[in-house]
Amino acid sequence: MNIQTLRQAYQKGTLTPRALVAELKAKMALHVNNPIWIYTLNDAELEPYLKRLEGAKIEELPLYGIPFAIKDNIDLAGVPTTAACPDFRYLPERSAYVVERLIEAGAIPMGKTNLDQFATGLVGTRSPYGICQNSIHPEYISGGSSAGSAVSVALELVTFSLGTDTAGSGRVPAAFNNLIGVKPTKGVFSTSGVVPACRSLDCVSLFTQTCADAQTLFAIMASYDSEDVYARTMPTQTKTLEKPLRIGIPRKSDLQFFGDAEAQTLFEAAVARFVALGAVVEEIDFTPFLNAANLLYSGPWVAERYVATKALLQKSPESFLDVTRTIIAQGKHKSASDYFEAEYALKAYRREAEQCLKWVDFMLTPTTGTIYTIAEVEANPIELNTNLGYYTNFMNLLDLSALALPAGTRNNGLPFGITIFADAFEDEKLLAMGEIYIKELACQK
Amino acid sequence: MNIQTLRQAYQKGTLTPRALVAELKAKMALHVNNPIWIYTLNDAELEPYLKRLEGAKIEELPLYGIPFAIKDNIDLAGVPTTAACPDFRYLPERSAYVVERLIEAGAIPMGKTNLDQFATGLVGTRSPYGICQNSIHPEYISGGSSAGSAVSVALELVTFSLGTDTAGSGRVPAAFNNLIGVKPTKGVFSTSGVVPACRSLDCVSLFTQTCADAQTLFAIMASYDSEDVYARTMPTQTKTLEKPLRIGIPRKSDLQFFGDAEAQTLFEAAVARFVALGAVVEEIDFTPFLNAANLLYSGPWVAERYVATKALLQKSPESFLDVTRTIIAQGKHKSASDYFEAEYALKAYRREAEQCLKWVDFMLTPTTGTIYTIAEVEANPIELNTNLGYYTNFMNLLDLSALALPAGTRNNGLPFGITIFADAFEDEKLLAMGEIYIKELACQK
Repeated sequence: MNIQTLRQAYQKGTLTPRALVAELKAKMALHVNNPIWIYTLNDAELEPYLKRLEGAKIEELPLYGIPFAIKDNIDLAGVPTTAACPDFRYLPERSAYVVERLIEAGAIPMGKTNLDQFATGLVGTRSPYGICQNSIHPEYISGGSSAGSAVSVALELVTFSLGTDTAGSGRVPAAFNNLIGVKPTKGVFSTSGVVPACRSLDCVSLFTQTCADAQTLFAIMASYDSEDVYARTMPTQTKTLEKPLRIGIPRKSDLQFFGDAEAQTLFEAAVARFVALGAVVEEIDFTPFLNAANLLYSGPWVAERYVATKALLQKSPESFLDVTRTIIAQGKHKSASDYFEAEYALKAYRREAEQCLKWVDFMLTPTTGTIYTIAEVEANPIELNTNLGYYTNFMNLLDLSALALPAGTRNNGLPFGITIFADAFEDEKLLAMGEIYIKELACQK
Repeated sequence: MNIQTLRQAYQKGTLTPRALVAELKAKMALHVNNPIWIYTLNDAELEPYLKRLEGAKIEELPLYGIPFAIKDNIDLAGVPTTAACPDFRYLPERSAYVVERLIEAGAIPMGKTNLDQFATGLVGTRSPYGICQNSIHPEYISGGSSAGSAVSVALELVTFSLGTDTAGSGRVPAAFNNLIGVKPTKGVFSTSGVVPACRSLDCVSLFTQTCADAQTLFAIMASYDSEDVYARTMPTQTKTLEKPLRIGIPRKSDLQFFGDAEAQTLFEAAVARFVALGAVVEEIDFTPFLNAANLLYSGPWVAERYVATKALLQKSPESFLDVTRTIIAQGKHKSASDYFEAEYALKAYRREAEQCLKWVDFMLTPTTGTIYTIAEVEANPIELNTNLGYYTNFMNLLDLSALALPAGTRNNGLPFGITIFADAFEDEKLLAMGEIYIKELACQK
């Protein structure tokens, strides 16, 4: 299902986009009991995308006939956007900027995926459309908020999918479904046509099965959008990997596995994999990253979630899930002084983080310290969600680029994931490293 | 009194720093009735600075024996900082980073200058240390908040001075005292050791008599300070002037002179001066700049002033001037939602401003639309202060660089000033233009 394989099949004539779409629709029907999708395109809605490819040349469209899924807080023209809140539903006339770029390159949108309501959560259980189950073990959470987007790629219902990532929504579900998760530098992928969570921090993210696919898609999606006030231009010259590779990991006292010894072993094995690739590993004081992470939900940025949803919140608070409303409503009570005090603190943490990042090619951490069953999260929805953000919540506040990667399998078959991260605009370096690492991982299997 | 002249005198041996300081102290005594200074260094306090120069080589110290004044919200080691609030007074052990750089280069600090309390104002009348009078006409305001810093340079009590500029405090007093006022790109001059007004917007600024002095000082002060969390590095390659020069001015309906016809004539003459230098002048829709300006005091950034002073405000509100307390206390009531809504609006204005700036080398405006007497400001302290910020308040919010320049004289002898501004990091281009313009101005006289 990866881009290269599909293109080869199209070029040889052994497959057509129309045939693939029919096959995928049939496959999607096998998973109807898992609420992966909020909306799937019917034949009539798919037709214009297929029709358009019929006259086109494969070599001119880098994503010719590549099926993809869209998280349902990102607009696809003519199909409703809900952000997993039925009363928020609207029908966009225009697709999000990044969706337009992908369709323009030949990709076929298959549907809109389930998510934690208003992208508020890392669990994938906070949706009135049902709890999206993990792709490998249905008793476990898929991770969120980009739950359906990750599961649809993991089950090979699409080649890739779009998520969003404010606190970790593009990385946690990657870890729980054995995928690549690209959390780009803020502003590099346009957020025009995306329902805001924290508008100053939001990123569109990518789920793929391979780093090669992620690289192809990154090049297409990293397109400056003058209508997005947070858009930034990718520099023409960016950092590349150095030799010997220098990697920072959190010092032992800062690592947190929440009692999950198996996760700890898998993380140590991942570190060893980088050592086998010639990397020098250094233990780093992780305090500035953890301090920044703590600001995300306890600090004033939750006011952005309030601003984004306050019209509906004031009109019909019952339209929200209880957990979502409880979190978002806190944003109302933050003061501008709270904001500025947090901003000054954050600027100082950023300086400290820069000191760490200066000495390494990238940092390496678990993506999450552990994984939970759906029942565990239902019993303790706030605290367990918080635990899942331990290694993710600081990333956008500190303006970093990150790549979530698979890192082996637990005894029960569930995957473990790691994240490598670096300064803003070092996305391509991380993707290059990801490709080398994935080869090493495959050799060991 | 400019740097080159003093250096030549020192090199010839016709002058010594000690002799100059004695002369300046005598001159300062002639102006004791004008509260320019909050603190002047006594002989014992000046001695170490003079002593140090005695063993030094002039050619090794670019500011050898150059006397300067420091606005009293910027620290000088061993001398009190008050921010024009006696109860806020503290004795810093260390000088501000920029002051250290200047002293290291051989400059001699003469004293700490009067200001609008907590740098909150553009008038120069809001100080318990007295109202600093205009250097040319004592019935008129000096402009603020960097009142004493501007007047000390205008009266040639020092060669240059440091001000600060959040809303226009480094430009308005330059206009009212016929000086060059450098409002650098945010973060290029360190603000370590500066009492914050709006910490995310504050700049240290410079007053000089010549653009050559400003260029020399800019090169010394634009030094990255890793301890300032808002510090930014000046790019090695920055924009230079193009031929033909393209200048943007506000379209007629956006120009505002508050009924001051003489100011309007002087502005038109300034525009003509640039045309004489070969510039093509374009009228620009000034709305995005004005919209941004309106956010500064009506918006959430006033919460930064509250954060900076709240310890004293809670303990002893009577320590503040009424006008200052009234303004700053508003900051308490701004919410984080207010902040984020203003931030999103500002980001959009910034995009619109970029569209304007893209087509011109720089924008040209009056520095202020008019000037007021002290009596006028005393009678109407808030509204007239607001009028003075019409062309200045947006500058730091929109992340621009600016240079205030003299632009001729009114019939009553008072000066008129213009400001040229461009995007961040274009300071050197503005200074180069300033030098050309000042020569043209001198030729016309």
